[in-house]
Amino acid sequence: MDYGLLMSNVERTLGGRKLTQQDLLYESLRRAILDGAIRHGSRLLASRALAEQLGIARNSVLYAYERLTEEGFIDASRHGSIVKRVSGADAAAAASASGRLQAVDGGLSVRVTDLPRERTSPDDPTPFRPGVPALDEFPLAQWRASMERAWRTIEPEELGYGNNSGHPALRRSIAEYVRVSRGVRCSAEQVFITAGTQASLDLCACMFADAGDSVWVEDPGYHGAKAAFQAAGLKLVPIPVDAAGIAPTPDHWKRTPPRLLYLTPSHQYPLGSVLSLERRGSIIENAVAHGAWIIEDDYDSELRHNGPPLPSIQGLVEHAPVIYLGTFSKTMFPALRMAFMIVPAHLVAQVDDTLSEIARQGRVAEQIALADFIDSGKYARHLRRMRRLYQQRRTALVDAIERHMGDLMTVSSDGGGMHLTVRLDAPLRDQDVSAATGAQGLHIAALSAFCQPPARDAAHYNGFMLGYARVKPQDADALVARLASVVRGML
Amino acid sequence: MDYGLLMSNVERTLGGRKLTQQDLLYESLRRAILDGAIRHGSRLLASRALAEQLGIARNSVLYAYERLTEEGFIDASRHGSIVKRVSGADAAAAASASGRLQAVDGGLSVRVTDLPRERTSPDDPTPFRPGVPALDEFPLAQWRASMERAWRTIEPEELGYGNNSGHPALRRSIAEYVRVSRGVRCSAEQVFITAGTQASLDLCACMFADAGDSVWVEDPGYHGAKAAFQAAGLKLVPIPVDAAGIAPTPDHWKRTPPRLLYLTPSHQYPLGSVLSLERRGSIIENAVAHGAWIIEDDYDSELRHNGPPLPSIQGLVEHAPVIYLGTFSKTMFPALRMAFMIVPAHLVAQVDDTLSEIARQGRVAEQIALADFIDSGKYARHLRRMRRLYQQRRTALVDAIERHMGDLMTVSSDGGGMHLTVRLDAPLRDQDVSAATGAQGLHIAALSAFCQPPARDAAHYNGFMLGYARVKPQDADALVARLASVVRGML
Repeated sequence: MDYGLLMSNVERTLGGRKLTQQDLLYESLRRAILDGAIRHGSRLLASRALAEQLGIARNSVLYAYERLTEEGFIDASRHGSIVKRVSGADAAAAASASGRLQAVDGGLSVRVTDLPRERTSPDDPTPFRPGVPALDEFPLAQWRASMERAWRTIEPEELGYGNNSGHPALRRSIAEYVRVSRGVRCSAEQVFITAGTQASLDLCACMFADAGDSVWVEDPGYHGAKAAFQAAGLKLVPIPVDAAGIAPTPDHWKRTPPRLLYLTPSHQYPLGSVLSLERRGSIIENAVAHGAWIIEDDYDSELRHNGPPLPSIQGLVEHAPVIYLGTFSKTMFPALRMAFMIVPAHLVAQVDDTLSEIARQGRVAEQIALADFIDSGKYARHLRRMRRLYQQRRTALVDAIERHMGDLMTVSSDGGGMHLTVRLDAPLRDQDVSAATGAQGLHIAALSAFCQPPARDAAHYNGFMLGYARVKPQDADALVARLASVVRGML
Repeated sequence: MDYGLLMSNVERTLGGRKLTQQDLLYESLRRAILDGAIRHGSRLLASRALAEQLGIARNSVLYAYERLTEEGFIDASRHGSIVKRVSGADAAAAASASGRLQAVDGGLSVRVTDLPRERTSPDDPTPFRPGVPALDEFPLAQWRASMERAWRTIEPEELGYGNNSGHPALRRSIAEYVRVSRGVRCSAEQVFITAGTQASLDLCACMFADAGDSVWVEDPGYHGAKAAFQAAGLKLVPIPVDAAGIAPTPDHWKRTPPRLLYLTPSHQYPLGSVLSLERRGSIIENAVAHGAWIIEDDYDSELRHNGPPLPSIQGLVEHAPVIYLGTFSKTMFPALRMAFMIVPAHLVAQVDDTLSEIARQGRVAEQIALADFIDSGKYARHLRRMRRLYQQRRTALVDAIERHMGDLMTVSSDGGGMHLTVRLDAPLRDQDVSAATGAQGLHIAALSAFCQPPARDAAHYNGFMLGYARVKPQDADALVARLASVVRGML
């Protein structure tokens, strides 16, 4: 062992501060023992000799030896300091070398290994990527001011885990808002704040279903929901979607009755259809008969441009077995990580009790700021502005599609949210087109890829989902012209 | 139908703005139809007549009728506007009235219905509640400044979903910090930011185990971990803990081999023991042999007062099958909701890929602010201050216990973190004492209640866990005197 080299490979600072000589020596010796540079059974240099050799105080050496002794790395006796054997090291090294760690431990769980996977990240800067709002139009200065105000009002004792159900002020603001804007029947107690729709879905899957239970998902449908349900150990049952939304047959109810139904009734993801009133009623009726829960994901209904959306299923009938999910990711911004679920009144106490065991809320400043943003009218004002802006962007995109690709594609969704759906009329497969445009930096999501399992030949769903939130009207024409030239090149 | 009363029961504002007459009328009619005040099959008043009766513009009535027609609530024909039947309402009402909703849907899932439950909320203001730091000692003004600085540097495009693994700056700061302070072997890529240890545990359970797999938990052990594992559908296997930490026998390994082992080796929760080096090695060896993962929850090791804690299991041997969990809830404040997991290098790509499907990160300002807080040395400075402060509080509490209850209890944990453990020497059961002191507003957690299932007669674990983070030295004596008088009253 070359003691001179000992202290050369160890980091010398901790959180901006220099380590002391004794800490450095301790850490160096510990590493050398663990890495086998000092072998077990060997004797360490006497403290005085080591201090001299390293040119440090003897007390520093004594400290390091004592700590290593206490921690069980060395045996100190009259005969000197003998390095002990740390079991486990050989086993781990052998397993790693033989590839056994990768083979045995290395695999993640089955449930996450075959998750339905999306090709692109939600933050992918490609212009037609759906799901992210026009962030450069968000009134950031106003929000910053709300946050600063919130932080100034917070008392130290509010920095704890916080109310697991959410801050009372925010729950109240949301309840008032959705009662009017979405026809939801609820009191503030029924509103539970979560860290985003993904978190809401995780909680729903765990609180309302057991591993092995069936959940109906729209087919084609939202990847994030399918991933959450699969991660919770549920069994996905894909149900076809048509122009009037999800279309279960009596046979579906009979043969594969669900414990949960996941629906995007206001603006089906990805097809854009609106679930008809008749189907809403029939689904409620059947859900009640089968003891199933409806999860109503109302992710972007606030952003409808042609008049208001059909009110929520939750509010359609009293006592409907519905958990209503809303989010501020589309209407505010995704990094906020603020969403909510609204549960039936008779479950409030149980959900509250359960959340206090499995969830932690915190984030009090963000919740106070958001409540203030809503109550002061800034939220409604921002929404009105964004609705107009998205309508303009949608119109520009539709015009460009009709101009450049009217013979190849037909816009098939109605006018809401931040994305539209087109049917591919040319004799091509959507996933091939998606790959080709993606290679040109213009990814457009193929509808058949949202099927469960992804269908390469789903003639029904041969088309694309195009986000337009980030496509400025003046850019639409050039972008679509580029898309068109890729598609024509394939014919 | 009294049309005059129609609009009196509907909310008139939305997000701070007054609703228009036409929206109000639409909403009022819709509610009346859904609630049965206007029966299905009945004919609405002609638009002109209704406008006159309500004293509003006829266009407002036409708008409301048209929207109701579009949405399927009424049928408009030459014969007038006929209210349609909304199915589902009768079924839901009947189910609710008969209590069937509560019976069939009402129950939450089995996995959450019998969660191990704690009696008190983590924010419970009772002085001995463990887990919440001395919030009034947190340098709130400094943190506020870090947050404001972070918000000023953020560009709109950073408001998206963000890197699912965490902000690179924060991952780097944490990796540097734990390498030195905890002997963790890692690069920044192995660090994944989460929204708190509860979220880390949820992710570990889902990514590293399937429903039905076994997880070893310390007995007695941490409620939050047990809840997370049970919610993920795992099977809990309690393993006894003694003065040297978790103590599995060869029989445990043989008969109930785990997929996951949940450990609090630096400061066992709740007993306070430190897992010996020998056991660490043996557990690694066995975990490798059985293809099991060790989850090392290092929740409060930064707050040791008598010298630094034993370095992490993660860093003990190379390639150890360990997922290391850290949190800022104890060292900063719980409402921050910021924690991390450090996974083995060979799993980085898979975990990254999985998180992008099942988790959303966001919260970019908080992450930038925290990285700044660490890198600038404020974090280390705050920790040093808190260590001194907690040591003083612990000493004052131990003194008071020995003074007032030396004959009844013995302090049995060593000196770290924010809580201590005492053994009850008097012939009483800890849960009875806990109930009695709780009734006097002085809840102290009974150790036997941390057993799985909670054991009322676990002679081994007859004692209490007392948090002292919020017990000022000058208050300790009076509080313990009150505790003592309750306990003596029971003898």
